[in-house]
Amino acid sequence: MQRSIATVSLSGTLPEKLEAIAAAGFDGVEIFENDLLYYAGSPREIRQRCADLGLAITLFQPFRDFEGCRRDRLARNLDRAERKFDLMQELGTDLVLVCSNVASDSLGERQILVDDLRLLAERAGARGLRIGYEALAWGRHVNTWEQVWDIVREADHASLGMILDSFHTLSLKGDPRGIAQVPGDKIFFVQMADAPILAMDVLEWSRHFRCFPGQGEFDLPGFLAPILSTGYRGPLSLEIFNDGFRAAPPRANAADGLRSLLYLEEKTRLLLEASDPLPDDNLLFKPPAASAYDGIEFLEFAVDDALGAKLSHWLERLGFTKAGEHRSKNVSLLRQGDINLILNAEPYSFAHNFFESHGPSLCATAIRVKDSTQALARAVAYHGQPYRGLVGPNERELAAVRAPDGSLIYLVDQDAEGRTIYDTDFSLVQQPATSLGLTRIDHMALALPADGLDSWALFYKSLLDFSADDEVVLPDPYGLVKSRALRSRCSSIRLPLNISENRNTAISHALSHYRGSGVHHIAFDCDDIFAAVKQAKEAGVALLDIPLNYYDDLAARFDFDDEFLSELAYYNVLYDRDAQGGELFHVYTQPFEERFFFEVLQRRNGYSGYGAANVAVRLAAMAKARSGSQAQVKL
Amino acid sequence: MQRSIATVSLSGTLPEKLEAIAAAGFDGVEIFENDLLYYAGSPREIRQRCADLGLAITLFQPFRDFEGCRRDRLARNLDRAERKFDLMQELGTDLVLVCSNVASDSLGERQILVDDLRLLAERAGARGLRIGYEALAWGRHVNTWEQVWDIVREADHASLGMILDSFHTLSLKGDPRGIAQVPGDKIFFVQMADAPILAMDVLEWSRHFRCFPGQGEFDLPGFLAPILSTGYRGPLSLEIFNDGFRAAPPRANAADGLRSLLYLEEKTRLLLEASDPLPDDNLLFKPPAASAYDGIEFLEFAVDDALGAKLSHWLERLGFTKAGEHRSKNVSLLRQGDINLILNAEPYSFAHNFFESHGPSLCATAIRVKDSTQALARAVAYHGQPYRGLVGPNERELAAVRAPDGSLIYLVDQDAEGRTIYDTDFSLVQQPATSLGLTRIDHMALALPADGLDSWALFYKSLLDFSADDEVVLPDPYGLVKSRALRSRCSSIRLPLNISENRNTAISHALSHYRGSGVHHIAFDCDDIFAAVKQAKEAGVALLDIPLNYYDDLAARFDFDDEFLSELAYYNVLYDRDAQGGELFHVYTQPFEERFFFEVLQRRNGYSGYGAANVAVRLAAMAKARSGSQAQVKL
Repeated sequence: MQRSIATVSLSGTLPEKLEAIAAAGFDGVEIFENDLLYYAGSPREIRQRCADLGLAITLFQPFRDFEGCRRDRLARNLDRAERKFDLMQELGTDLVLVCSNVASDSLGERQILVDDLRLLAERAGARGLRIGYEALAWGRHVNTWEQVWDIVREADHASLGMILDSFHTLSLKGDPRGIAQVPGDKIFFVQMADAPILAMDVLEWSRHFRCFPGQGEFDLPGFLAPILSTGYRGPLSLEIFNDGFRAAPPRANAADGLRSLLYLEEKTRLLLEASDPLPDDNLLFKPPAASAYDGIEFLEFAVDDALGAKLSHWLERLGFTKAGEHRSKNVSLLRQGDINLILNAEPYSFAHNFFESHGPSLCATAIRVKDSTQALARAVAYHGQPYRGLVGPNERELAAVRAPDGSLIYLVDQDAEGRTIYDTDFSLVQQPATSLGLTRIDHMALALPADGLDSWALFYKSLLDFSADDEVVLPDPYGLVKSRALRSRCSSIRLPLNISENRNTAISHALSHYRGSGVHHIAFDCDDIFAAVKQAKEAGVALLDIPLNYYDDLAARFDFDDEFLSELAYYNVLYDRDAQGGELFHVYTQPFEERFFFEVLQRRNGYSGYGAANVAVRLAAMAKARSGSQAQVKL
Repeated sequence: MQRSIATVSLSGTLPEKLEAIAAAGFDGVEIFENDLLYYAGSPREIRQRCADLGLAITLFQPFRDFEGCRRDRLARNLDRAERKFDLMQELGTDLVLVCSNVASDSLGERQILVDDLRLLAERAGARGLRIGYEALAWGRHVNTWEQVWDIVREADHASLGMILDSFHTLSLKGDPRGIAQVPGDKIFFVQMADAPILAMDVLEWSRHFRCFPGQGEFDLPGFLAPILSTGYRGPLSLEIFNDGFRAAPPRANAADGLRSLLYLEEKTRLLLEASDPLPDDNLLFKPPAASAYDGIEFLEFAVDDALGAKLSHWLERLGFTKAGEHRSKNVSLLRQGDINLILNAEPYSFAHNFFESHGPSLCATAIRVKDSTQALARAVAYHGQPYRGLVGPNERELAAVRAPDGSLIYLVDQDAEGRTIYDTDFSLVQQPATSLGLTRIDHMALALPADGLDSWALFYKSLLDFSADDEVVLPDPYGLVKSRALRSRCSSIRLPLNISENRNTAISHALSHYRGSGVHHIAFDCDDIFAAVKQAKEAGVALLDIPLNYYDDLAARFDFDDEFLSELAYYNVLYDRDAQGGELFHVYTQPFEERFFFEVLQRRNGYSGYGAANVAVRLAAMAKARSGSQAQVKL
């Protein structure tokens, strides 16, 4: 398909937008009229610039409120159209978008709408131009694709066709399946936009909250599939009105836009192929399928010698054991249960560079995959940036791709002989039995810049085929935090992504300490929370203090006996219960070097959340700890 | 009235909130339950802290979904209530807020609701506590004050009364007038919240977009007046769920909250007095009435000698004439028509301090008032900060109050002998006739931090009795800009306030250059735009270049002949026409030292806006000019 995007979807001046669109790999561009009006060069210069960049101008949208306008304005509107046709011919594009009239004094009689559009199509056709008619969700009389098709069919003019926009149909809960019955050559253009489901005025929703396919909650493959069934092979174009996008760096945002179209194509292909083989295998993007995942293989921390020793000591108190040293590098391995943590203090390494720019931090996450070659090929097909590090003799080379923050995601499988990375690269020592009983990494939370959520979600959804939970909003004492959890199929890997638009929240604090986004919270699973916490306390792990008032409230909300409540309170264990009776018990540590903190949790009876009910008390306790440590610094 | 605020309205930890609330001058506080749960001290400690700060704890809101709950849960809920009653007695407050049940499985039969609430009131009454029942706008069965009153009346228990919240009534377009018929002693508590009118889900609206009285669009005096008519004399409490407030500095925000209550009291007093004299003149805040305004007397710029000379030269090209020097200070006066501009380079002055911190900038705005003593008394009554500068011999002392950004607002009248400040303080020279024909200051626009709009609007509405137009959203190439215009009665003073949440917009650019909020745009009125612009161009004034494409579009939109369009384009004159046929012609200058720019405009046929239709082209042209000058700097 021809991949296109409207200039209104991006930030910047027209030249900045066009360059970003071309760099992302789009084939075409819809020039939004205001971008042209505010540009100092002529339409011919824009045409030339697009040609130089290899971009077709797929559409122009020069006026509104045409069909059914007051009769005394019709002649004037046709004159206006002719002036805009001149402009389009200078631009070198042949398709005009006419969206349904929203004026309160516009006329709704079908025959008038048919006649007006036929008249306009006649004028356009005489100049080799075409009119595409589109239903706005808030059109005065016309707001469904069915009405548009009825009018276009009745007008029956070769230069008049339909334009379909996913938002206008799906926002009104319209059913796109009937589109499959329309002749494909009467669909002139297709605009794709996603959006979160919001209970608000549809015009405001459309103008401020659209997003790229895969970033919202609409069923876009379900919209595109019937369109392709008609034989439509024209452009797929992104027309995204989004307050954040209007201010985002245009190059990165355009790259996200293209990735979102690829993702939509893959999902639509899978949907179509579920019933019939595709007539043309090249029609839609076909990356290698996602590999199966089996949890986190290891986490790698960037440290220097001093902080490595400190973190190592910290982790040993949490029940980890030093299990090995790298054969040739200044890298050590700590283990407990199925958890592998690597501390990397090797100079001239990726980790070292990461340490230089971010301080002690999580610089790599290794995902256990069934087939690393296939997993990497998929990531690269989705324009992921592969990474190749220094590999010593007899060491495994690991497939890796850059995360949006520059950290690495390793894709690790067993080698041909069934050996792990630890067998090949490390000198292992026998692992002693003492531990806290932590079994695996339950989840890792990332702090992102306020506008980073959509981009990260799309990265994981497309490259790694993760799914995304609904967004939740949580109160920090100094502002709100938004969280959206990503998870791999079968949920063996879970990544809550957190943002905050406010400066003083824990998330913003984590971001400023990392000098960029990063993992700030790692949760370990265990089978017996009280045994684990008891040992941790004895080992001197500093746990986050939870106020007693919290436990008084638990007493009012649940039927706990006083002894059990006292135990929860003594060990600072938080509690949550879901509607199905699933239970979560969890404790938090104080932060390590203000960079990250750890959680120890136990899930019972299939609890599948993250303790959202307790995030506010945790954030308040952390804020108190922060202000306490600041006060100490002041003293 | 007892003035109260809920802790949820502010940012911070509970102690931070309480201190801010006391410092602002509130009498009482509603402790939001989560603030208590997350606090490390006991309820008794909170009680003591409030007592030390002189704050009554006016209300506690410890549970939800009580009345009409599933029958198997009732006993459990009553137990829970008893535990919370214990807590309230420790806190030392006697009023429980019970808001209407929202649970989908809750029961709606009137008799059940009556019985449940009577039961709870009985339990509360036995301990000297009272139950206030409130309708949530999204309650499952009960969501109007009329339903609440019906149930409370039927239950007929001395410990059960109504709680009224303006948001829950006004968001559903309810009519509060009937409240006047309720016995005043059955109203236990009143919560006041304003909000912008938004077409969205009422729960989301309530949780994120409430604001202080006077900052939104609800008719709050119309809500409060019937309540006071009942004889209600209990607390007026602010319960504001607002994402911005959750992150705003709590002291400044609490001060705004108190000011908003004073403003509400004044407006309600005026409404009540329109029909009957108040029974108790001390019941509601009564500041001196606002003075009559007659436009801007002068603007004062903070400069040093070099920049003063440069700005003076700039203004002379715009048709201003040096009209005088201050008798004793390094201060000069430029004049044209009714416009007075003062350039202040005096060391050891307010202007000098302002220059040191903000660079060349507008440091004071003088408003022409009928009675400066009264105007200042009103400002001070509203907790404005008066300013007294150094006054030399034979100089006028000017009444002044600090604006929220630290600049000054002078309140200037003629002295007893009818002399102006220019007569008393300046050596005036005869003013020559040559000018551009600029007649008066039409408006001045301020760039504010993203969260500053509500606070500034409230400042001008309360201290100066300005009114505020609706907010408009405008596209800058690098993000959105929000604008809300304030105007004095009779519109002789107009101040559009502009904010942007995005870093690279013109507004953010202006803010970073000012190192704080400030005037970045001053518009002068004239009677003949073409004569003025022709002279300006000849004098070498650098006007903002407007792209020719803009004029092509004007040609399509309006019936202008080509000669007129060419003239518009040649002089970079922008054009707008309103629905009533009012017309605006306007041009912009390039910015002076990246700090502010000037506009010359002509209004015809009663045009009353600010050319919003042309703001986007202006912002795009300014962005281009900025990136051009940055490019030059790079070369």
